[in-house]
Amino acid sequence: MAAKTLQDLFVHMLSDIYSAEKQLTKSLPKMAKAATNPELSQAFKTHWEETNNQVARIDEVVEICSLKLKRMKCAAMEGLIEEGDEVVQEIEKGPVLDAALIAAAQKVEHYEIASYGTLCVFGKHLGLDEAVRLLKETLAEEKVTDEKLTMLAESETNPEAARQ
Amino acid sequence: MAAKTLQDLFVHMLSDIYSAEKQLTKSLPKMAKAATNPELSQAFKTHWEETNNQVARIDEVVEICSLKLKRMKCAAMEGLIEEGDEVVQEIEKGPVLDAALIAAAQKVEHYEIASYGTLCVFGKHLGLDEAVRLLKETLAEEKVTDEKLTMLAESETNPEAARQ
Repeated sequence: MAAKTLQDLFVHMLSDIYSAEKQLTKSLPKMAKAATNPELSQAFKTHWEETNNQVARIDEVVEICSLKLKRMKCAAMEGLIEEGDEVVQEIEKGPVLDAALIAAAQKVEHYEIASYGTLCVFGKHLGLDEAVRLLKETLAEEKVTDEKLTMLAESETNPEAARQ
Repeated sequence: MAAKTLQDLFVHMLSDIYSAEKQLTKSLPKMAKAATNPELSQAFKTHWEETNNQVARIDEVVEICSLKLKRMKCAAMEGLIEEGDEVVQEIEKGPVLDAALIAAAQKVEHYEIASYGTLCVFGKHLGLDEAVRLLKETLAEEKVTDEKLTMLAESETNPEAARQ
């Protein structure tokens, strides 16, 4: 890593979340397929589209700020996706799997909320205003996705799963 | 995993966060040692004590609800700690490392916030009222730690790191 300045750290964290988002674009279609509840399946599909846009948004930040991302694999997202895969493989289709998928997805969202939150703050200190504007859009989307999943869990999948 | 019911899933997620907290008790003293800012170092020490209490609280939940936790290693926390270790090894002591330590710690806090949030909701549906009361105490502590880290970053480490 060898980060000596806040800008080095900003680039490192941006490279990390870029890897995380890329990993997620491969995972979300599997989650959409595994979900039984049609609204949940649709929420994963919608978030897959958003995630692709978020990757493009990072490309935009890189271009605007003339940065060079590092090739790296986000280890935390690897672990988070491993948890999600385990859930899909080991629980039968139905409301309990749906509840487990939401739990796994909310952990992913929280990883991203923490990451983009820090990136926005670092960007502000570095005077990267246009980058901050773009990253704040993504941060807002991640928060909305997390809230949407909470509502879906409480209104549908959790009560159904509790009856199993 | 073979979770068939919401209770199975509750036990699985409780086993996961138990492993996560145990891993964290080994990581926080290293983070406290690596921090330059004395308030940050103290925040990690305080959270180390809290984390030990949180492990004991899970033991209490297990006893009250007559559950049996599974031996497992939380892969996501493994990845999160790997990120924190990398930071400690590769950045020189000083404000940039402090900013990186806070970023890593906030990702950990967000993992825990997502986990305990889901556990509280599952517990409510399962009628495990006493467990929910205990888990909500931990959830509140994690949120306070996250906010404390944000304040410390904004008032001290980020402005210092930006001047490097």
